[in-house]
Amino acid sequence: MEDQQVSTMEKTEFLYEGKAKKIYRTPDPGLYLVEYKDDATAFDGLKKGTIAGKGVVNNLVSAHLFQLLERHGVPTHFVELVSDREMVVRAVRIIALEIVVRNITAGSLAKRLGLEEGLVLDQPVVETYYKSDELHDPLINNDHIRLLNLAAPEEVEAMRAAALVVNEVLKEYLAGRGIDLVDFKLEFGRTLDDGRLVLADEISPDTCRLWDRDTKKKLDKDRFRRDLGGVEEAYAEIMRRLIR
Amino acid sequence: MEDQQVSTMEKTEFLYEGKAKKIYRTPDPGLYLVEYKDDATAFDGLKKGTIAGKGVVNNLVSAHLFQLLERHGVPTHFVELVSDREMVVRAVRIIALEIVVRNITAGSLAKRLGLEEGLVLDQPVVETYYKSDELHDPLINNDHIRLLNLAAPEEVEAMRAAALVVNEVLKEYLAGRGIDLVDFKLEFGRTLDDGRLVLADEISPDTCRLWDRDTKKKLDKDRFRRDLGGVEEAYAEIMRRLIR
Repeated sequence: MEDQQVSTMEKTEFLYEGKAKKIYRTPDPGLYLVEYKDDATAFDGLKKGTIAGKGVVNNLVSAHLFQLLERHGVPTHFVELVSDREMVVRAVRIIALEIVVRNITAGSLAKRLGLEEGLVLDQPVVETYYKSDELHDPLINNDHIRLLNLAAPEEVEAMRAAALVVNEVLKEYLAGRGIDLVDFKLEFGRTLDDGRLVLADEISPDTCRLWDRDTKKKLDKDRFRRDLGGVEEAYAEIMRRLIR
Repeated sequence: MEDQQVSTMEKTEFLYEGKAKKIYRTPDPGLYLVEYKDDATAFDGLKKGTIAGKGVVNNLVSAHLFQLLERHGVPTHFVELVSDREMVVRAVRIIALEIVVRNITAGSLAKRLGLEEGLVLDQPVVETYYKSDELHDPLINNDHIRLLNLAAPEEVEAMRAAALVVNEVLKEYLAGRGIDLVDFKLEFGRTLDDGRLVLADEISPDTCRLWDRDTKKKLDKDRFRRDLGGVEEAYAEIMRRLIR
């Protein structure tokens, strides 16, 4: 791995603990520090576990992909890596929407529409889910988004457009590393300082379905969800293929 | 009740039995005969029962509302009443989509978004569901409709626009009869002869949520779904208020 930029940014106040990450304030009110954990959950937190090394993989892979996306003109919250498990990001207020893009049928799409897994789609399918554990992250449409006042119609359009660009960039990049990008989930936020919409959260084997192009072996969190074994190895394999 | 137009149209071949209706061919290949049953089902057929007189109410109420909508420029499959339980309709191939319009939170919308029932919405919410008992009629979006090839994008837009017109017409009409139009489900079909998109299925207390404006008493199939009692009386009350 190449040298990583290292900052002396200190954590000040602990702000929020999610299922896979902790967020801290920093001395700069426009910046947060994100610490990636090895904790893994699935099925709205019903299944809990640990994937050794996951925090490192997800931090470094996310940093790598955020930088790739920034080079392709997609604004993200990423600022710099601090350590193997920590990155500095722009402070954002997360929009309570998950934007999912799918290239191949799998998971809830296959179940919802009664399709087998592994069908390659002619065009990507974009879905919006309401980020709510209590409600089990339900699929919602633009009218629901308006009713819940989650985002302005222009923001929804901007997120959808950005998600399709992210899909094109990542699909091609991963294909070059022998990986099919099956689907992925994005979260966006509005920066605290100027309210700009930026891609936030993480892009990792926790939030993407990634299959080996030739063997179709799953190299993502589905190994944990479905007890397929070799979870740590799959995460390590993604890091090995992406960060050289 | 006023005299109904009565046709001598005969049933020829039995074509299809749904949960609430039977469809027959007629001597004219462009026309079907629909017979409304008293059978009631809920929860994808898990709950079964009979609502005495429902077939009559739903046939007469649907005929009444289809005629109202035709007068407001909405093309429907309705041709004429044949008897208290039978109507002649244009033969259509039904599109496997349910278009739901909501004015007040209730049922699956309240559940999906974690809202209480009875909130009056600023603007109507339109939803599309995939008509599939096995899949429990899942909510789907435009990308899913394209993937399943259920309807062309222009058709989806036309159905959504028609559904909003239906909402305006019915809401005002029902308000004049002391009824809140909470929500309703529409189905559309393409005519066998010229492929025209028309409103089909039925519009009745089986497919609408109808609340008394003053008491908020439910006057629809929710009385059956939720074992509220007074089911037959509610259907009869709707017929009494609509058809004078």
